[in-house]
Amino acid sequence: MIKKMSQNASPSSSAGPNTLCPIALAQEVVGDRWTVLVLRELFLGNHRFEDIQTQTQATPQMMASRLKKLESDGMIERRPYNQRPLRYEYHLTEMGIAFYPVFLALRAWGETWCKPRKQGVAIHYTHIPCGKNPGLGTVCQECGVVLRREELSATLSKSFVAERQKRKEAFKGNQV
Amino acid sequence: MIKKMSQNASPSSSAGPNTLCPIALAQEVVGDRWTVLVLRELFLGNHRFEDIQTQTQATPQMMASRLKKLESDGMIERRPYNQRPLRYEYHLTEMGIAFYPVFLALRAWGETWCKPRKQGVAIHYTHIPCGKNPGLGTVCQECGVVLRREELSATLSKSFVAERQKRKEAFKGNQV
Repeated sequence: MIKKMSQNASPSSSAGPNTLCPIALAQEVVGDRWTVLVLRELFLGNHRFEDIQTQTQATPQMMASRLKKLESDGMIERRPYNQRPLRYEYHLTEMGIAFYPVFLALRAWGETWCKPRKQGVAIHYTHIPCGKNPGLGTVCQECGVVLRREELSATLSKSFVAERQKRKEAFKGNQV
Repeated sequence: MIKKMSQNASPSSSAGPNTLCPIALAQEVVGDRWTVLVLRELFLGNHRFEDIQTQTQATPQMMASRLKKLESDGMIERRPYNQRPLRYEYHLTEMGIAFYPVFLALRAWGETWCKPRKQGVAIHYTHIPCGKNPGLGTVCQECGVVLRREELSATLSKSFVAERQKRKEAFKGNQV
């Protein structure tokens, strides 16, 4: 069963801020840069603690606190992938997946305003229903349909793959 | 002249994080809950320090640091509105205004997932080109056009007006 955050933390409860503003309420859940980076990794298909830590470059303590809060807010859920020892993966709930349009909008803005003009996009998408590049934004520039995560196929740019691979190697190096 | 953040803080510079990821880069600018609330006020037409402080409920120190960073990141600019003593208003730049789709997506998600089901929306919009309620999201549910800030007319709900009025009175009370 999907648990809406509002069922256990309405704005009038002591748990949440006393406001009707959806922006302020949303920021109680996602108003932290590390939390957003954790969600990014989950959207990219990274589900395990170490892999998320590697790519966000957060400390284990920071990771643990963000994952715990995301779980209690209803954004993610833990699923066991190993029994002995018991190990969990982290997966987005329906509430978490519903956050995707914010990511698309944030990606569009970040690609446009926070990067040198000639640097290519980090992730190339293909809009599966029309087979074309949906462009930046929340709507496909080719077919005009609102973009959904499950209808996008992602290819990381060579340099972004290299950046992530480098972090992986650095992390492994630190573990030895 | 519009100053893109990238011109003074490319990802490879020491000022920014060493990444190609637009989400991580964007979070360097807006990855802080108070910063987002300041931007919300600017989008709502509040341009003066005290008015923004009243509605975000931040301390003057928090406000000052966020406004300073937003200005140095190219999101806002100061405009004098009084000469003696010299006083400034804060206005969104083109880079700041371009952040609006993220707000629309965040609003949609917050209204849907962070509030009790029966609580109405905080702000009712009318999509000026079609004259109808654009619904939640970044595209008008009626005419299918991508929503732009200047094509939306906003009406705050009675209870949201009351909430904001209450904060105003509380702030004035504290100043006496």
